[in-house]
This record gives sequence, C-alpha cells and structure tokens, in this order.
Amino acid sequence: MKLFITFEGIDGCGKTTQLHLLQDYLTRKGEKVTLIREPGGTKLSETIRQILLNSKESINYLTELFLFESARAELTEKVILPALNRNEIVLCDRFYDSTTAYQGYGRMIDISKIEVLNKLATNGLEPDITFYLRIPLEIAKERTKSKSLDRMESADIEFYKRVINGFDEIYEKEKHRIVKIDATNNIDSVHQSILVYIHNRLNI
Amino acid sequence: MKLFITFEGIDGCGKTTQLHLLQDYLTRKGEKVTLIREPGGTKLSETIRQILLNSKESINYLTELFLFESARAELTEKVILPALNRNEIVLCDRFYDSTTAYQGYGRMIDISKIEVLNKLATNGLEPDITFYLRIPLEIAKERTKSKSLDRMESADIEFYKRVINGFDEIYEKEKHRIVKIDATNNIDSVHQSILVYIHNRLNI
Repeated sequence: MKLFITFEGIDGCGKTTQLHLLQDYLTRKGEKVTLIREPGGTKLSETIRQILLNSKESINYLTELFLFESARAELTEKVILPALNRNEIVLCDRFYDSTTAYQGYGRMIDISKIEVLNKLATNGLEPDITFYLRIPLEIAKERTKSKSLDRMESADIEFYKRVINGFDEIYEKEKHRIVKIDATNNIDSVHQSILVYIHNRLNI
Repeated sequence: MKLFITFEGIDGCGKTTQLHLLQDYLTRKGEKVTLIREPGGTKLSETIRQILLNSKESINYLTELFLFESARAELTEKVILPALNRNEIVLCDRFYDSTTAYQGYGRMIDISKIEVLNKLATNGLEPDITFYLRIPLEIAKERTKSKSLDRMESADIEFYKRVINGFDEIYEKEKHRIVKIDATNNIDSVHQSILVYIHNRLNI
C-alpha cells in the first residue's frame, strides 16, 4: 500500500517513539515500510544534517533554510519517491511543515517564499497524512531537559513559542491532511489515536 | 569606493586571471579590495563547495541548486555586505548569474523559480558591474583540456551550449549592469577593455 506519512511537532513531542511504534505495527501487518528522518536519509543529506545541527560557526537563517531544502530535495528524489513507486509506506520524521514552522514562523523568514522553496524541493509531493503531535512548551522542556541540547534545540523560548504557533496555524490551513493529536497523553494512548486514522485509511 | 563587481562566463574564459589583474590594478591605485569566489568564501561555504565539486555520489539538480544558494546566502551576509559597508570594492568570481545560466539554462530548472531563490539568497543585492567574458565552447575546451576536470566541468557538450546561450540571454536582459567582453582576445587586451569600464565608473 503506497502511503506517505509524516510526523511533525517540537522536540519532546514523542515523534520518534510514535514513528517506531507505527513502523512495528505496520510491519506486523505485513506492510513494507521505509522509515526516514529529516534532515538526513541519504549520505549527502546526513552530511548536511551534521552541518546544520553541529556547526560551531553561526549559520545565517537563509543559509540554514537552503541547506534544509537541499537535504529535502535529495531525500525526496532518492528515497521517498522510489519507495512510494515500490508501493511502500513511507514514514518520515519531519518534512516541509517543520521548515515552515521553524524557519518561517520561528526565524521569521517570509512564509510565502518558504512555500515556493518547499514545493520546488519536493517537486510538489504532499504527505497523505501528517500527524502533528502537539504539546505545550513547558512539557517539551521538561521532557528534553536531560538530553544534551544540539544547536537547534538550545534556541530561545520566544522562538519555540513562535514555532508552536506556526504548527497550529499550518494545521488550521491544512486540515485535509494534518491530524492534530494531543501528545501530552501517554505513549500508548497517542499510538492508539494514530491507529484510528491508519485503520481508516488503510483498511487493516 | 564601495563597488560590487562580478565576473561571469564558462570555465576557460579567463575570469580568474582577469580578476587578479583587476585586483592588482585597483590595489595599486590605493583601493581596498576584497576578492572572493563562488561557491566559497567562508568556512561553511567552502565545505559546501567541496560537496558540490567533489561529490562522488551523483547529486540531484535541485539539491545542487539549493546548495549553491546556501553558500551564496552565507557569503553575501558574512563577507560581501560587510566589505561593502566598509566601502571596499568587492570582486567576485561568479555570482547568481552562474546559477541562472548553469542550473536554469543548463540543467533546465524553471528560471523564474531560480530568480526567486537568487533574490532570497542575496537579500536583493545586485552587482554594480558584471563582466561577462564570452568565449565559444571550442576555445574553452581547448583552454581547459590540460586541467583535471572536476564534477561540474566534465558535464556534457550540449549542457555547455545551453549555459553559453543562457549567459547570452541574461546579458540581453541585464544590459544595465552586464558588460560583455570578447574573451578570445589576449589577456592584456581583455584587461584593458575591463579598465575602460572601471575608469568610467571609478574616475581613477
């Protein structure tokens, strides 16, 4: 079954845990699943990921935006589209909504320009379902405080407030594909909520 | 004297030689000159340059485009604009016309989209003068055949024909800033032609 599913939300929302739970579930049901993370997923995209997350030099916001889009273009052409063409389910940890939320709402780069770049990088490919795992900033901070923060995660509070507001606004505009899930609930309850939509879509 | 000058043309047209001759001339006249090359010019941009020119993996055309723009955004903000703000003359070996010519005309990515990216990466900064050193493909091939070809240079003949046509068309549209120079002439004669325009502009 060909299906492109993305997970979005701020760090600490539980995306990675939920992605793996869904991957296990689908695999047990006999589906072929490709799981990837953004930025990353190809050798070149992982190189770009390293530059983005671990650069000791400050990176200007536009440079950062173009680097995300370059990694996305590579991932889309080399991994996502081929997997979909093999009728697999692709699960992606972040996709272009993260760029709109972080670089657009967060860094305050003109959102209409970001949308041009997003469309170009993905050749117009849109996720079939996007799970937006929503948590308030206070809970995200609580959940991530024990992790060593990378460059992106150590940005300031006002920035993250704008990012959450960004995800909320993207959800309002894109309800035809985005499912908002209250990710303050426990792991199994969030997983069950996700499965409701998966059953609905996949008929499994 | 604040002035932003770019040099454009295919490999083998003599850009680098002419850039250095002009740098020497201007320095002798007491001007402060910053000379840079694209992609490159900052630590991060040089990392991106290495990915672009030496990648053993094939890089998809959109990824390549976004990488050029990310290097350009970095160079513009960190090197070009600060130098211009110090009232220096900035000489740049390639700028956004190369992206329009190579990725737009050469790789056949939609030119209107490339123009959006070029404007975004440079925050709308436009060169005061662009010297387009024009040579036919046959002469460029003759001049570069002894060099070991990097990834960009070993692309095919039809590609380079489209790139030259691209530079010609960009020149027709941007005559207010682009000076086309017949670069089949000898080095000194090309240098003298460039100086005519420099004298005209700088009054030195």
